[in-house]
Parts: sequence; structure tokens; C-alpha cells
Amino acid sequence: MRVLALDCTAKSVSAAIAEDGKLICESFLNINLTHSETLLVLCEQLLSNAKLGINQIDAFCVTAGPGSFTGVRIGISAIKGMALGGDTPVFSFSATEAMALAFKNMPGFNGVLCGLMDARCNQFYNGIFKITNGEITRLENDRVIMADDLLKELVEKYDGQNIILVGDGAKLFFEICTNCENISLSPEHLLIQRAAGIAIEASLSSIEKALSPKLLQPIYLRKSQAEREREIKNKE
Amino acid sequence: MRVLALDCTAKSVSAAIAEDGKLICESFLNINLTHSETLLVLCEQLLSNAKLGINQIDAFCVTAGPGSFTGVRIGISAIKGMALGGDTPVFSFSATEAMALAFKNMPGFNGVLCGLMDARCNQFYNGIFKITNGEITRLENDRVIMADDLLKELVEKYDGQNIILVGDGAKLFFEICTNCENISLSPEHLLIQRAAGIAIEASLSSIEKALSPKLLQPIYLRKSQAEREREIKNKE
Repeated sequence: MRVLALDCTAKSVSAAIAEDGKLICESFLNINLTHSETLLVLCEQLLSNAKLGINQIDAFCVTAGPGSFTGVRIGISAIKGMALGGDTPVFSFSATEAMALAFKNMPGFNGVLCGLMDARCNQFYNGIFKITNGEITRLENDRVIMADDLLKELVEKYDGQNIILVGDGAKLFFEICTNCENISLSPEHLLIQRAAGIAIEASLSSIEKALSPKLLQPIYLRKSQAEREREIKNKE
Repeated sequence: MRVLALDCTAKSVSAAIAEDGKLICESFLNINLTHSETLLVLCEQLLSNAKLGINQIDAFCVTAGPGSFTGVRIGISAIKGMALGGDTPVFSFSATEAMALAFKNMPGFNGVLCGLMDARCNQFYNGIFKITNGEITRLENDRVIMADDLLKELVEKYDGQNIILVGDGAKLFFEICTNCENISLSPEHLLIQRAAGIAIEASLSSIEKALSPKLLQPIYLRKSQAEREREIKNKE
């Protein structure tokens, strides 16, 4: 199965095509440009470089959140747009799963993977995974958590274990991890969630597990700022 | 320092831009097209996506071999072409170093990394590295080695250690590793050498360590098929 995947839950954007577990192509861009400027250009280049038409994609795949509201909506919309024309099925992953998949099937790697995205207001979107010789087990469902509460949890629950911080909120969270020798940042090239891992994973899945594009939904862990402000205003 | 790096020592091609250790963009393509068709397109897209002109690159970087003779020559020529105009300095890495750099700074990862490229005639280009908690130490210089001799060496020297096979010859070599439970393939997205690792590494180096583009030389570990055939013919 040939899958085109994309991620724009972070500030970066990435797109990848995989076929039956083989990575055909991948593109990643992390500059201060909005996804609306970069995403479709990247997808076009990817298909053109791989000499593929959009009708030669068997399934689409996207990180459906958590992440920036605008980024999540652009990613979901782009995938729906590409998939609806041919009613092509879609796979959806959490952004923290995409982070963990960068460490999958890595024999000799053991650690606790802490996926992090900046949720502003001193909060993080977070999911936690145990990786044992490259096998991934989720330990904590995706959630919004205060930075201090997460640090306390990491120190108490995973004392002495190798904790690796991943995601586009990882550097920000790492700043408060003083005196924690067992907590470290992911290497730079695996730091930010990407489309390659989910593309490979989906290309090895059964097509029966994919959704109709109409059913694809974003993963929001809390209400948007506009909604929260309206609620406060309505209460006043 | 902002570095544009490329690799076309394997069948795949990849290009990346990094700045002071941060990965700005990366593109990877692994289809049956020659580097002469893909490489410069990829570089143009990368610069265009990152909104950079070629004169905004402080240093270029390339995997200079070992690898396919044609691929190595195209990579070196492209980098020389881009660098000579502005006499921009260049960094050069071995293809096996590029493979090892994919596992650098990965806390919790321990193993023996065996970099492999198919050198035909049942031989491999090979370099071996020890990775201890993400720190890389080279154990064997790049060489040409018979498949059977390499397998014997791995079994005798690194008995029981976690051996991970990387590079575009890894899958081929893995086929003969029967009954070797401690030998496994790298995960797919890190399997083939890429430009991201060398771009990041070079962008953190001192510019004084770079070469004038005139001095950039390919790394050949043996004579080309044409040269070998001429020698045999001359002897007859």
C-alpha cells in the first residue's frame, strides 16, 4: 500500500510517501513560514519528485493533533481535500505517536519517551511512551498538563530511567529540567514530529483500518483560545 | 554557520540545510531515478522552500564516498560547482560517518553500528562504529570486505552485542545473517545515509576545519570497474 502522509501540528511541516514499509521520499521544512504557504508546495514537490500522480496514492495519513489549532486544521483540511476526490481512505495518528514512531524498531534503544508540544500558558500537550528495544508501549494518553506537574511526575514516576524529550515543545520544557541528569533532549534530526514515521506505519497497516475521509476528525485536547474567551465573555 | 549538505553515495539522494545545529530543511528521495535527474532539482527546491539564495550558504558539505562511483562523482561535482563560484568552504564526510551520525546524541542507545554499501562481487564497503549512549567511536576504518569475512568478524568480535546494520547495503547483508539474533536492521527511516546528520554536524564545526572546494576529493576504496578491466587487458 502506498501512503502519502503529512504533519503540520508543529511550526514545522513535513510530508512523506511510503510504500509497504519502504520510505520513498520525505520532505521537512522548519522555518518561520505558515503552513498555508508551505504545505501544498511540499506535497506537490514530493509527488512530482516521486513521479506519482495523486490518484496513485492508496491512502492518505495525517497527524490529527494535538498541536497548534491552525496547523491541525490545515493538515486535516489538506488531507480531506486530497482524499475526498477519489474517496481515498485516510489514517490518522496522534502527534505524540508520530514522535514515538521515530524510535520504533530501534534495537538497543531503551527509554521513556516524553512527547511535548507547547500549549502556551505554561502548559504542554503531552503523551508518554515506554520504548523497550525499539518496541513502543503508550504509558500516558495525550493530555494538557502544567509544566511543573509534568516535571514532578517524571521525577517521581521514572526516577533514574532514561527520559528523552521529543516534539516541538521539547526544548522549552528542557529549560526547566535542571538537575535532572536522566532527562535529555532527542537528537536534532528526530526532535520534531515528522511524516516519515506515520507514513511507514500506515503503509504496513491493513487498509480496513483506514477511515473514510469524511470521518476524519481533529484531536483537540482543549478549547481554542477564541472559544475560551467567548465563554469568559458570556459569563461576565 | 549555515550549511547545505548532500548525499548521493547510495541509490537514494538527499539534501539538507542546517544552521548552528538546527535542521532547517531536508529532502530525501529513494526511487529508481539517476542522481543526475534528481540531485539539482532537490537542491533548488530546498533553497526555494527555505527562501535562501545559494550565496546565503556559509559552507557546503558532502558525503565523499565510499559508494557508487557515479554517485560519488556527481555529489562531489555538484558541491564543487555550487561552492567554487563564491569560493565557499566545503566539509567532507565518509558515507559511513553519515550513517553513524543518525544515531548520535541518542541517550539510551547502545550498540555496534555496522555501515554497509553494496560494492558488488559479494563485497561490501564497510565501516564499524561503537555507539555508547549516543557517543560515536569509530572501530574500523572504511574498507572493502567480502561478505563472509565481515560476518565472521561480527560474530567473533562482537559476540552478544547489539549490532545494527545501516546503509543502502544493509538489507542485502542482513540476508546472510541467519541465526544471528544480536544482528538487526536499522529502522527504515534511518536505514539509508542522509544529508541531515552531516549538515547538522558541519553546522556546529569550526569553519577553519573546512576545505577550499578545489581540494575536495572523492573517497574511493578501490579502482573503478573500467580501471580494473583495463589493467587485466593490459596484462594479457
